[in-house]
Amino acid sequence: MGAENCLTGIRVLDLTQFEAGPSCTEVLAWLGAEVVKLENPKSGDPGRQINNPDGADAHYFLQYNANKKSITVDLKSPRGLALAKDLAAHADVFIENFAPGAIERLGLGPDVIRTLNPAIIYAQVKGFGTGSPFEKNLAFDMIAQACGGTMSVTGDADGPPIKPGATIGDTGTGMLMAISVLGALHRRTRTGEGEHLQVAMQDAMFQYIRGAFARQTSTGKAAQRAGNGSVMSRNPPMGIYPCLGGGPNDYVYVYTSRANPEHWRRLLGVIGREELIGDPRFETADARRENEAEVDAMVADWTRQHSKQDAMRIIGAAGIPAGAVLDTNELLHDPTFEQRGITQTIQHPKIGPYKMAAFPVRFSGRPAPLHPAPLLGQHTNEVLGEWLGLGSDDVGALRESGVIG
Amino acid sequence: MGAENCLTGIRVLDLTQFEAGPSCTEVLAWLGAEVVKLENPKSGDPGRQINNPDGADAHYFLQYNANKKSITVDLKSPRGLALAKDLAAHADVFIENFAPGAIERLGLGPDVIRTLNPAIIYAQVKGFGTGSPFEKNLAFDMIAQACGGTMSVTGDADGPPIKPGATIGDTGTGMLMAISVLGALHRRTRTGEGEHLQVAMQDAMFQYIRGAFARQTSTGKAAQRAGNGSVMSRNPPMGIYPCLGGGPNDYVYVYTSRANPEHWRRLLGVIGREELIGDPRFETADARRENEAEVDAMVADWTRQHSKQDAMRIIGAAGIPAGAVLDTNELLHDPTFEQRGITQTIQHPKIGPYKMAAFPVRFSGRPAPLHPAPLLGQHTNEVLGEWLGLGSDDVGALRESGVIG
Repeated sequence: MGAENCLTGIRVLDLTQFEAGPSCTEVLAWLGAEVVKLENPKSGDPGRQINNPDGADAHYFLQYNANKKSITVDLKSPRGLALAKDLAAHADVFIENFAPGAIERLGLGPDVIRTLNPAIIYAQVKGFGTGSPFEKNLAFDMIAQACGGTMSVTGDADGPPIKPGATIGDTGTGMLMAISVLGALHRRTRTGEGEHLQVAMQDAMFQYIRGAFARQTSTGKAAQRAGNGSVMSRNPPMGIYPCLGGGPNDYVYVYTSRANPEHWRRLLGVIGREELIGDPRFETADARRENEAEVDAMVADWTRQHSKQDAMRIIGAAGIPAGAVLDTNELLHDPTFEQRGITQTIQHPKIGPYKMAAFPVRFSGRPAPLHPAPLLGQHTNEVLGEWLGLGSDDVGALRESGVIG
Repeated sequence: MGAENCLTGIRVLDLTQFEAGPSCTEVLAWLGAEVVKLENPKSGDPGRQINNPDGADAHYFLQYNANKKSITVDLKSPRGLALAKDLAAHADVFIENFAPGAIERLGLGPDVIRTLNPAIIYAQVKGFGTGSPFEKNLAFDMIAQACGGTMSVTGDADGPPIKPGATIGDTGTGMLMAISVLGALHRRTRTGEGEHLQVAMQDAMFQYIRGAFARQTSTGKAAQRAGNGSVMSRNPPMGIYPCLGGGPNDYVYVYTSRANPEHWRRLLGVIGREELIGDPRFETADARRENEAEVDAMVADWTRQHSKQDAMRIIGAAGIPAGAVLDTNELLHDPTFEQRGITQTIQHPKIGPYKMAAFPVRFSGRPAPLHPAPLLGQHTNEVLGEWLGLGSDDVGALRESGVIG
C-alpha cells in the first residue's frame, strides 16, 4: 500500500444489512473509504444477532463489517429522516439492500437522494432484477443460488443439486457491486457524473458459472453436475482421493490436465508405477477415461498411505496440480496465513482478540490493514460532527429526543 | 451508463490466460477500459482451445474475453519482447497469471515493468501466495477450491467434500483483483502512484466462506458440510423439495427464516395446513428441528404436486423466500433475462450468433454493452498503430520477420 490508501477521502453512507451489501462496503472500507453504517438505534444490522455470543456482536457480523463506522439514526422519525438526507448530501456513495420497495417507502429512494446530490453513486442490491417477474420477492443467498444456476451444477451426477457452501449469492454479488461502485467513482472523478447502480443476486450468479454456460451452448443441453470433476470435461485422474486419517476432509485433489500429458507421466513416477509410462491403456486422456476405475484405484492406493498435507507436498513438488482439502480449522490455524497477513487478529472491544481473514489482495506486498467492526452507534458523535458540523449540544439534543441512539 | 463508460481511456495490457486473469480483465473491458490481450502468434490463450468447435475459438473463451482486443507478439524474440515493453510503457495496467516465475523469466517481471513505467498498476494472479510454502506450485480452480476451504463446506454432512460447480477459484479470484485494480487506479488519479498487486487463488477463497469461518470461531471446530442447509444454522423447513417432473433439477428451495416466524405460518397457509398454525410441535424453529422429518414431509407433499416454477411463484407471492432450482438451459432460454439485457446475443465473426451473460450490474437501468471476444491477433495493426504510432510499413516488417502474428 502506498503512503495513503486507495479510497482515502471517499465517503460511503451504508444502509446495508446481512451480507450481500455489507461484503461490498467492507471491501470499500478495506481500500480506505470512510464507510458509515447507518443503523436503527434499537438493534442495528440484524447481522449483529446471528448466533451472537453472550449479547455481543455476532462473529458473522465481525466478518462483514470490519473497518467501518456505525451511527444510529431512527429513520421513522422526521428529524432522523432529515438527518439521513443530510448525510447523503455529504456522501460520495449511498448503498442499500433492504427488501424490494422498502427504501422508497422510507423516503430515501434513488429519485430523492439523486436530486439532493446529483453526483452521488446510488447503489442497490436486490434478490431479483427490476423488470424480473420476481422483482418483489425476498431473497437470501440460498434462493439466489437456487434460481441463479450455481446449485444446478454442484453435486454428484446422479444426486440432487447441492448448494455451494461458499456464499456466492451474497458475497459473490457484493463483489460485483464493489467493482461497479469503483467504476462509477472512476468516471465521476473525470466527469462529475453520479450513477444509479442496481444488481440482482439471481443475475449475479451467471458470472460465476460461465464454464457451465459454455458447456450448455456447446451441447445444447443443461450443464450437468460433475461431482468433483469439471462441468467442462472429464479427464481422469481428476478429483479427490482419500488420505491417511480418514476424517471428513482427509482428501487430496489431484488434477492432470488434458493440455499437459506430462502431468500423468509425472504422477506415475510419484506413485511408483513408472512401468505404466507409455502403456496404451493409460497414456492418453481418452484411454484413462475408459479405464477410469483402474486409474482412480492406483492413485488412491498411494494417497491412502499419506496424509493429505504430505500428498499435496509430494505430488505438487513433482509438477502436478494437487491440493489438500483444507477445512476452516486448518486454514485458520495455519501460521503461514498469519505470517503473510491473510489472516489477522483484531482486538474487539467486547469480544477481545478475534482472528479473521483480511482482504486477500496484497498491495506492494502487504494486505489491507484490518480494524474491528464497529459497536452499534460507536461513531455517531464523530460522524455527525465531521460530516455535518454538529456540535456536542446539537448531538445531545438529538439523542435526548430519541432521534439518534 | 452515462454518456461515456466508466473506464474510457484506461489501457490494460493483458497477458492472462484461461479464467482467473481473463475474468478480471473482462470486467475492466465491460466497464470501458481498452483491454489488449497480448497472445503468442501460434495459438494464443490456451482458453481458445477448450472444447473448441471446428477449430473456431472455444465457447469457454468467448465467455471470458468479451469486449477485448487481441494482438499477437512472439515474446521469445528480442524484438517481440521489446515491443511488449513498449506497449507496457504506454499502458495504465499490466496483468498476468502465468505459472509461478514465468513472467520474470520472460523478462517482463514487476521490477522491469515498474522501472519502465512507474505509474503502472502491475497485477499478478497466482495459485498460492508469495511466501506460502506452495508458492511455486501450479494451481487451477479445483486446486484453489480444495486448499482454500470452499470444498470442505460443500456437500452432504455425511458425504465427501464436493467442489462447487461455480468457478470461485478462478472468477471469484478475478473479481477481487478487478476490485484492487480499480482501487489502485482511483488512488493513481489522485497521487500519480503506481502499484504492485498480487492475489493468490487459495487466499481469495477465504473471502467467500466467511460465514463458515464465523461458525468456526463460534464453535472452535471446523465448519461442517450442511448439504442444502446453511453452515450457520439449521432451521427447517430450509432446503430443496422435490417438484413435478422428477428431473435432475426439479426442486424448489424453501427458506423459512428464524428471524421471521411469519414465514412458517404463511407457508402453512400455502400448503393448506392452517390447522397447524400455533401447534407447539412446529411453532418455533427449535420445535421444527425436533420434528424435521415431519416438517419436510408435509412441505414435500405439497411441492410434489407443483412444477418448480409454480411452487416458486406461489410460495414467493405469499412472502416466503423460495426459489426454483434453475439449470443453465432454463436460464439461457428464459426471455426475461434477455429483455433485461442480462443475457445478450453477440455476432461472432466465425461462430455467428452466440447468446451469453453480460455483466449483471445495471448502470442507470442498462447493463454494460457486450461485444464478441477477439479473434487471435485481430487488433495487432490497430493497437501497434494507436499505442506506439507504428505505420503499416513498420507493422508489415514485423510481421514478415515473425515477431508478430
